[in-house]
Amino acid sequence: MSAALTIEAGFDGGGTRRQSARAALLASYNTVRGLTEALAAPLSPEDQQLQSMPDASPTKWHRAHVTWFFETFILQPHKPGYCAFDEHFSYLFNSYYEAIGARHPRPERGLISRPTAATVTQYRHYVDVAMTDLLDCADDALLVTLAPLIALGLAHEQQHQELLLTDIKHAFSRHPFAPTYQPPPGFTRHDPPPMEFLDFEGGIAEIGHDGPGQTSGDFAFDNEGPRHRVLLHPFRLATRPVTCGEYLEFMADGGYERPDFWLSDGWAMAQREGWQAPLYWSRDPHRDSWQVFTLLGRRAVDPAEPVCHVSFYEAAAYAAWAGKRLPTEAEWEHAAVSGRAEHTGGFLDRQHPHPRALLDGGDAKLRGYGEVWEWTRSGYEPYPGFKPAAGAIGEYNGKFMVGQIVLRGGSCATPHGHIRPSYRNFFPPAARWQFSGIRLAEDL
Amino acid sequence: MSAALTIEAGFDGGGTRRQSARAALLASYNTVRGLTEALAAPLSPEDQQLQSMPDASPTKWHRAHVTWFFETFILQPHKPGYCAFDEHFSYLFNSYYEAIGARHPRPERGLISRPTAATVTQYRHYVDVAMTDLLDCADDALLVTLAPLIALGLAHEQQHQELLLTDIKHAFSRHPFAPTYQPPPGFTRHDPPPMEFLDFEGGIAEIGHDGPGQTSGDFAFDNEGPRHRVLLHPFRLATRPVTCGEYLEFMADGGYERPDFWLSDGWAMAQREGWQAPLYWSRDPHRDSWQVFTLLGRRAVDPAEPVCHVSFYEAAAYAAWAGKRLPTEAEWEHAAVSGRAEHTGGFLDRQHPHPRALLDGGDAKLRGYGEVWEWTRSGYEPYPGFKPAAGAIGEYNGKFMVGQIVLRGGSCATPHGHIRPSYRNFFPPAARWQFSGIRLAEDL
Amino acid sequence: MSAALTIEAGFDGGGTRRQSARAALLASYNTVRGLTEALAAPLSPEDQQLQSMPDASPTKWHRAHVTWFFETFILQPHKPGYCAFDEHFSYLFNSYYEAIGARHPRPERGLISRPTAATVTQYRHYVDVAMTDLLDCADDALLVTLAPLIALGLAHEQQHQELLLTDIKHAFSRHPFAPTYQPPPGFTRHDPPPMEFLDFEGGIAEIGHDGPGQTSGDFAFDNEGPRHRVLLHPFRLATRPVTCGEYLEFMADGGYERPDFWLSDGWAMAQREGWQAPLYWSRDPHRDSWQVFTLLGRRAVDPAEPVCHVSFYEAAAYAAWAGKRLPTEAEWEHAAVSGRAEHTGGFLDRQHPHPRALLDGGDAKLRGYGEVWEWTRSGYEPYPGFKPAAGAIGEYNGKFMVGQIVLRGGSCATPHGHIRPSYRNFFPPAARWQFSGIRLAEDL
Amino acid sequence: MSAALTIEAGFDGGGTRRQSARAALLASYNTVRGLTEALAAPLSPEDQQLQSMPDASPTKWHRAHVTWFFETFILQPHKPGYCAFDEHFSYLFNSYYEAIGARHPRPERGLISRPTAATVTQYRHYVDVAMTDLLDCADDALLVTLAPLIALGLAHEQQHQELLLTDIKHAFSRHPFAPTYQPPPGFTRHDPPPMEFLDFEGGIAEIGHDGPGQTSGDFAFDNEGPRHRVLLHPFRLATRPVTCGEYLEFMADGGYERPDFWLSDGWAMAQREGWQAPLYWSRDPHRDSWQVFTLLGRRAVDPAEPVCHVSFYEAAAYAAWAGKRLPTEAEWEHAAVSGRAEHTGGFLDRQHPHPRALLDGGDAKLRGYGEVWEWTRSGYEPYPGFKPAAGAIGEYNGKFMVGQIVLRGGSCATPHGHIRPSYRNFFPPAARWQFSGIRLAEDL
Repeated sequence: MSAALTIEAGFDGGGTRRQSARAALLASYNTVRGLTEALAAPLSPEDQQLQSMPDASPTKWHRAHVTWFFETFILQPHKPGYCAFDEHFSYLFNSYYEAIGARHPRPERGLISRPTAATVTQYRHYVDVAMTDLLDCADDALLVTLAPLIALGLAHEQQHQELLLTDIKHAFSRHPFAPTYQPPPGFTRHDPPPMEFLDFEGGIAEIGHDGPGQTSGDFAFDNEGPRHRVLLHPFRLATRPVTCGEYLEFMADGGYERPDFWLSDGWAMAQREGWQAPLYWSRDPHRDSWQVFTLLGRRAVDPAEPVCHVSFYEAAAYAAWAGKRLPTEAEWEHAAVSGRAEHTGGFLDRQHPHPRALLDGGDAKLRGYGEVWEWTRSGYEPYPGFKPAAGAIGEYNGKFMVGQIVLRGGSCATPHGHIRPSYRNFFPPAARWQFSGIRLAEDL
Repeated sequence: MSAALTIEAGFDGGGTRRQSARAALLASYNTVRGLTEALAAPLSPEDQQLQSMPDASPTKWHRAHVTWFFETFILQPHKPGYCAFDEHFSYLFNSYYEAIGARHPRPERGLISRPTAATVTQYRHYVDVAMTDLLDCADDALLVTLAPLIALGLAHEQQHQELLLTDIKHAFSRHPFAPTYQPPPGFTRHDPPPMEFLDFEGGIAEIGHDGPGQTSGDFAFDNEGPRHRVLLHPFRLATRPVTCGEYLEFMADGGYERPDFWLSDGWAMAQREGWQAPLYWSRDPHRDSWQVFTLLGRRAVDPAEPVCHVSFYEAAAYAAWAGKRLPTEAEWEHAAVSGRAEHTGGFLDRQHPHPRALLDGGDAKLRGYGEVWEWTRSGYEPYPGFKPAAGAIGEYNGKFMVGQIVLRGGSCATPHGHIRPSYRNFFPPAARWQFSGIRLAEDL
Repeated sequence: MSAALTIEAGFDGGGTRRQSARAALLASYNTVRGLTEALAAPLSPEDQQLQSMPDASPTKWHRAHVTWFFETFILQPHKPGYCAFDEHFSYLFNSYYEAIGARHPRPERGLISRPTAATVTQYRHYVDVAMTDLLDCADDALLVTLAPLIALGLAHEQQHQELLLTDIKHAFSRHPFAPTYQPPPGFTRHDPPPMEFLDFEGGIAEIGHDGPGQTSGDFAFDNEGPRHRVLLHPFRLATRPVTCGEYLEFMADGGYERPDFWLSDGWAMAQREGWQAPLYWSRDPHRDSWQVFTLLGRRAVDPAEPVCHVSFYEAAAYAAWAGKRLPTEAEWEHAAVSGRAEHTGGFLDRQHPHPRALLDGGDAKLRGYGEVWEWTRSGYEPYPGFKPAAGAIGEYNGKFMVGQIVLRGGSCATPHGHIRPSYRNFFPPAARWQFSGIRLAEDL
Repeated sequence: MSAALTIEAGFDGGGTRRQSARAALLASYNTVRGLTEALAAPLSPEDQQLQSMPDASPTKWHRAHVTWFFETFILQPHKPGYCAFDEHFSYLFNSYYEAIGARHPRPERGLISRPTAATVTQYRHYVDVAMTDLLDCADDALLVTLAPLIALGLAHEQQHQELLLTDIKHAFSRHPFAPTYQPPPGFTRHDPPPMEFLDFEGGIAEIGHDGPGQTSGDFAFDNEGPRHRVLLHPFRLATRPVTCGEYLEFMADGGYERPDFWLSDGWAMAQREGWQAPLYWSRDPHRDSWQVFTLLGRRAVDPAEPVCHVSFYEAAAYAAWAGKRLPTEAEWEHAAVSGRAEHTGGFLDRQHPHPRALLDGGDAKLRGYGEVWEWTRSGYEPYPGFKPAAGAIGEYNGKFMVGQIVLRGGSCATPHGHIRPSYRNFFPPAARWQFSGIRLAEDL
């Protein structure tokens, strides 16, 4: 389990436990902050400046924005005498918090050459020093106040770590000569295990996070709660995500030419954008086959890998073609905690930010979490009883609850320990630049 | 109860009942078809040619398209020797059925000057004669086959009757001098009853239509089923829709200036489009007040009327401002059949296609159905176990199940008897040109 | 010579000549006004409602706008007690006169269903009666004032007659089934005469109109003057316009695939719009050949006809391919009055609004005027000493003198007698919906 | 006179002169190439990555593109065994030469993070070494061949030096906090001399460059010739450009609110874009006055400076307001060589890339060249007898000869010695990001 999920231990104990809690907080902080810099390390100042579409942000912006979050929500309210590194940064690096004031328009983040990447490095260091100092000097009461805010700040930074990778991948894909983020490793192919379906009886189940939400130690985002009862109809869920090989069969069977598989909006989008394959796939000009652009370079599509960079529309069309459907998010969560799911492997490996083919695990269990996010059939809506937190912090999740689809499961770009079974990721149905794939379901 | 809902009676009885079933079918057919022509009667050939936005269609197109539906799905497969009125019409008047073949692009319907409105009248007559003839000569087996198809065709035509009104209203609103569809009636103001909230305990409930769907006699659209159990959390529902007067308070309190009430997509849309009030409202240039454009002309906003022509975004912002929320569609349907709802009044009055102020009904009951469609908090998704019908007919509903919000309740432009409590209307969250309003809910 | 050009005769003579001048004015008025209605006669109210692009206007609008011109600039200032037909029309039917006040946005003319075409007919009749009455009762002084204004009004209406045809042609071309304006006549092919080049020595020449401009009897538009001296370098001009057959050779030689023939803006436009042939040309789906949409229906391209509906960009590319160039407007005008040009044939024939193939005329003369407008190599700029007239009338021409290219010569949609050798037509270089063709030139 | 204009001296002399010619060529090369690097020196790698609109390019791209020009047109054809620095660069750094092959889309130049600015520095050095080596070893015949190509390459690089400055100025202006290119110098105000008008009699004059064009030593671009006779009508020309103070009077008199001063396209553009002042002007939020963004920071508008960053549309509107007009390019060139023009001062000063206020020169002469480019009333068209050069080099100028307006005179960003009186600069009429101003003319 990750550092980020354990920081909350022990604030009710004695002095020793208190010190170890303080130390654990600091360790979590340093681990997460250090990973951001490690992820940016292979990128030049020019790379860090790139913004290739309005939905994506420059690396430099991600690095500064997550830092601004600590400065704005922790250092300024809680560290007496704290002086902002640069008063302009609040305008430049606020993402969408209307309550904090004016902010720079998102599609123009790529026009901010100043501060430079080097200055952002100094900014991060400046804030890290102040945070360390704040934690060192905090008394117990303050630690209890800070712990959940730091947990939120670190969870937030982890989200941006994933975006940092998906955004630079998109930017590099627009370069005509396929730059690499990491040199590719050696590569051995093997066959994936067969896709099987596990049965679930349904009935009344509980889903959602039962903790006190983002202001508590047992961290979860506010959108994951309240924990509540749902009524599930009997269903079956596939033991693993759909592979590229299976997706190639869909394509070969006219998947992108036959409107009867598609939702109407999806078909219109596919026609308008000329979709013929997942994002980052291209025809090999020399052979009758498909290549895929990855952060490790461009290479042949591996049929054994989970397919990714598909939109919800493509996922739903694939499911219709396969005679199945996508799971609801309640089905997904219920299955994930059923004891029939195996949560080994997966998640971010900096040396290999790309989904890996599954090995055959022997018995029939739900596997493959942490390789690709899995589109569900559920729109992103508030759970019964959901209320956003008051103030700027409350803008975190609730205001996005329309026009988006829930994804579950985590990807090869998701930092270890960032997520839980109750975690609700969400993107618009046309989004393809995340590591998003497909797990099939059907009625029992 | 409307003719359209009773056509199915009696196909298992003896000869007399058979004749009366045949007569009932024909009567329903004539009633619905006649209403379309009555709705178009105040409109000149030039009016019928107008298309003021890609989402709307010319009156002439609506009149021809619903006729093409009977020609394509009933006369051509079931009437031996039937000869199409004009073979070009299949291309011109197919709306979105991919299975039927190529079709004219929707945004260019306003460029089709030929056939003229007069020719469309002939087309309608030609099809009506053939339909009457088909029904007259059909044996029992054929009648059993035809009845559900006719029910679908008539329900379909009723949907387009509502669109005919909302589309011509939008077109007229673009004319600088506010043309009228009907001369305005005399107008007496009165105060609406107070808004109260009724409590519902929740628990396991059943919603959805239990009939065999659109191929059966007890007509419902396929998207209304299957009937299924849902788990409802305790909730409260307002006795009537929000009025213009209440909405003016929201506006006066900065409703359109304060992002904290809004969903993020809604705020962005409101800023981009410069929304300051519901669609069709404008400031009176001579007084400090608001006017509204209606099919009966432009006049002062009546505070007692239900507010309408608001988007889902505005409905949700209003609810947030009011400290309430929108109901889910399951809550809405459960309440509508609870015995605490009064379904009198409302729906289409050709002489007055505009929502009317509610009269005080005395006791606390759910009222106001049939004045404005009510936005719910539910995305338009398939019910558990839903499967679209095979073939072109199956394109009716399922393929739109993403990116849309469910509305319930019916409006002043909805033909009598067209809908049921299980009826699911749906539009994108930014749509404003329907007669769409707001009913509040909250957790109990 | 047309009626419009002779109205000015005789205002300095005695009573008889005065009466004949009055009669001539009225005859011109009736002739031109009648032609507009004759041109609109084949069009239904729905046809007259069409606006297929922002640059084009509905037939009904043209009919009303030219009438508004007489009402605004002649009847209202000069007819005591004249009461406007409808006070709204000034807003609806002002084209671009900023000095007259607000006006309806051009791209939304197609949304004006009211007034109907029938009401516009009444409007025209109302104004015609008032104009006839004004002319009947005018004394000599008033006649002298009115004559040039009427000349301008009629010249203006003639311009809109051409636009009426080119605009409805564009609208019909957007209909999937190629409606016709007139039934096609019988059709006999013949070969065009060979293209020869006539030499002109150049030197100091005079061009432009020497009359007192648009406020005088010898009518010309203000942009045609002042008459002035120009220095011409020796040049040669083709005896006839380029034919479709010759243009097909350009296409077959990769004319639309080779950027070296094209101006940079033209190449970008051709790529963006996917131009492969002149506007209205389409591939015959059944044979390996080209069809052309005309006001007389769709038929095979006739190689002998002058090519038309090409943009300036295409004309310039063709000339580059042919190793020639386009003439300047000074060269064109100098040649047209040189005595080596034959001005027979051509111009509007209501029964055949399409360019006709040239017959061989025997000797080498400049021929083909009045079939297609001829793109020149000259931007539309003010002549030396040009000053726009004061007031709204002055908005006629001068304010368009940037971003446009001069065309000379007149087309099969230009009314007889509307133009002179000094006439300067102008359109943006990408415009294709006029009857615009190509005459080649080269340095001597 | 600049180095670039003297490189051609002496190829017909003996050995010594030959050596000095070789040395002069090399000196010119080093001077021009060095200036580019000096101009880029204040810019970080991130600054050099910026592209703020499709018309502008990143600094890094300019630095690489001008280098690619030498590699492609000189080193590859003329240096045996030359090996390209990176074969990808031909795709990345070709600007618009269709004959050279595919190229990277212009609006996406800002997405090319690789090569980095540092790699571009290496590229420039690599090419400089090869060019020096080529010149050192060239025999006389090769020198004669190379000299005009080098002259073209250097003139080309000088054009991009101006664009480098105008493009980074535009990019910086999009940053919310007004970064500076250079720290601002001290600033002393003084009054400009009065505007007077000098008379010119007109008649037959010669304009254009008489040299053998771009393949000769006496360098000029191909579009400047052939030298030819023109007929000038008598005219007057202002002694200096319009100042900001005079332009403020135009603004105060409703210049941006009154359509009667404007060309129609200009008025539409000004309305659409919301123009209220020249580009880079903004209202001082604290005082009722105007500020201007410059490469030296943001400061108050100086009324004595020449106004700049106005479009042709604004220049023409100003002239109409002033009761004058803009000069034709023939008038301008004739006056510039008349002996009544003073060509001192002006042009690029790296420490002060902004127009300076004119000092009073005493007698009435044409002054102010080299502060702002001066919009003429002439469309950019080929001179009589103009023929583009064959091959890729011929794409330099001719293919842009439509839709553009000629500017004359040079600006504070134009390198010394880059231009001549026959120099024809050109931009579309809406362009504002060049240092473009206004000199008035009128008929005599």
